[in-house]
Amino acid sequence: MPEQGNITAAIMVIGDEILSGRTQDTNTSYIARFLGTLGIDLREVRVVPDVEDEIVAALNALRARYTYVFTTGGIGPTHDDITADAVAKAFGVGIGYHPEAMAIMAARYKNPEDFNDMRKRMARIPDTATLIKNSVSGAPGFQIGNVFVMAGVPAVMKAMLEELAPRLKRGAVVHGATIEAHMPEGQIAAALAAVQASHKTVSIGSYPFYREAGPGTQLVVRGRVPQEVEAAAATVESAVRSEGVEPVRIRSEGL
Amino acid sequence: MPEQGNITAAIMVIGDEILSGRTQDTNTSYIARFLGTLGIDLREVRVVPDVEDEIVAALNALRARYTYVFTTGGIGPTHDDITADAVAKAFGVGIGYHPEAMAIMAARYKNPEDFNDMRKRMARIPDTATLIKNSVSGAPGFQIGNVFVMAGVPAVMKAMLEELAPRLKRGAVVHGATIEAHMPEGQIAAALAAVQASHKTVSIGSYPFYREAGPGTQLVVRGRVPQEVEAAAATVESAVRSEGVEPVRIRSEGL
Repeated sequence: MPEQGNITAAIMVIGDEILSGRTQDTNTSYIARFLGTLGIDLREVRVVPDVEDEIVAALNALRARYTYVFTTGGIGPTHDDITADAVAKAFGVGIGYHPEAMAIMAARYKNPEDFNDMRKRMARIPDTATLIKNSVSGAPGFQIGNVFVMAGVPAVMKAMLEELAPRLKRGAVVHGATIEAHMPEGQIAAALAAVQASHKTVSIGSYPFYREAGPGTQLVVRGRVPQEVEAAAATVESAVRSEGVEPVRIRSEGL
Repeated sequence: MPEQGNITAAIMVIGDEILSGRTQDTNTSYIARFLGTLGIDLREVRVVPDVEDEIVAALNALRARYTYVFTTGGIGPTHDDITADAVAKAFGVGIGYHPEAMAIMAARYKNPEDFNDMRKRMARIPDTATLIKNSVSGAPGFQIGNVFVMAGVPAVMKAMLEELAPRLKRGAVVHGATIEAHMPEGQIAAALAAVQASHKTVSIGSYPFYREAGPGTQLVVRGRVPQEVEAAAATVESAVRSEGVEPVRIRSEGL
């Protein structure tokens, strides 16, 4: 796929709980598909620990390189939630209680005592950042420059993603065709390489699977011009048929 | 947790299918837990696309920084499997058909015609690398320096991980206690910060959840000295009780 002018993104997942294997990250695939619907290419993901210097270094590397960076995790009320401070440090700006964030959060607690100092930490926002509203649990995320800072709890992250989406530039959506062939991928590999060589505007991926009925391969054709994706997919299907196997088109996105 | 002398690791996931959101990565959490049982700290994960320069740059950054790097994906027979070449390039070594890999693979195909040129690609191994056997589907992974190159298919990756484990240095295992408190994390946050401040050899994480019965928090105490983990966990439990909630110890690892 041509690279020029594409809108690109990286995700930075912040959290010891992912690195210890305690929690299975599902935010990445959700954000990836969400960005896909907006025509934004996810190019890199990094998972980093709850360590300020690591967050700062990774964020500065990613924000210099991609149109957008989306972070998840580390914006709660507890001592291990250090994302806001780390982001302020990465941008070289100060951090303080954001009046609007304070107002949003104060309104959530009927008993003012419940809006304690630790909860107030969630209203500390880097200078120059704008809020990302959180319709699920109140405490907002924020945007600073090209970086969007979101919660790690999936339901909250999803709400924040909906909220921030109107701020994003959109690109041409990638269309895809997924073809299942009940044969080992080594049997179709040469033909597939030939299709890729003659259809340079699409990318063709091959993903083997093993089921009780035997080995098979999912062949995925992706590209930004639907007719070219369809043409390449049809050629792949012919190649599968040439091996005496009937291909099954299991998914067509935007074709 | 003290950092000196720890054995560290990074994972590099290679694959457009993860970045497009088509495939949910589960290898990372499996490898994380596996390394945990060996006392090896997973410190970073990167997901990179099927692009040679990206693989080379990420691998060189990670292998300089951590004791071990584990890669998944991109070692199959198809044109989009470029990991072996990229790893050779990162190490500045040549690549060619590895005699033992050729023998292993040739033995799998009764009909010699089936051992076609594309399948032979899977026997191309960087110079100086040693093989990692694959008891599931034959085509081996390999180790070069401190880098272990594995398949992306979970069943194959798991078999390779078992196979390579005896080559790894082991560290002191991290022990953990997980305590569930049926209260919002903002209610326990101050007490938790105090426990963390007075128990510096452990790390305490707080992970909120939302269930029908109401909000709650999982409090995770981790550290390398079981008595210190247990002492901190007991203090956390007392803090939860002080708020009028009975804590539930849902998991104790090595205590």
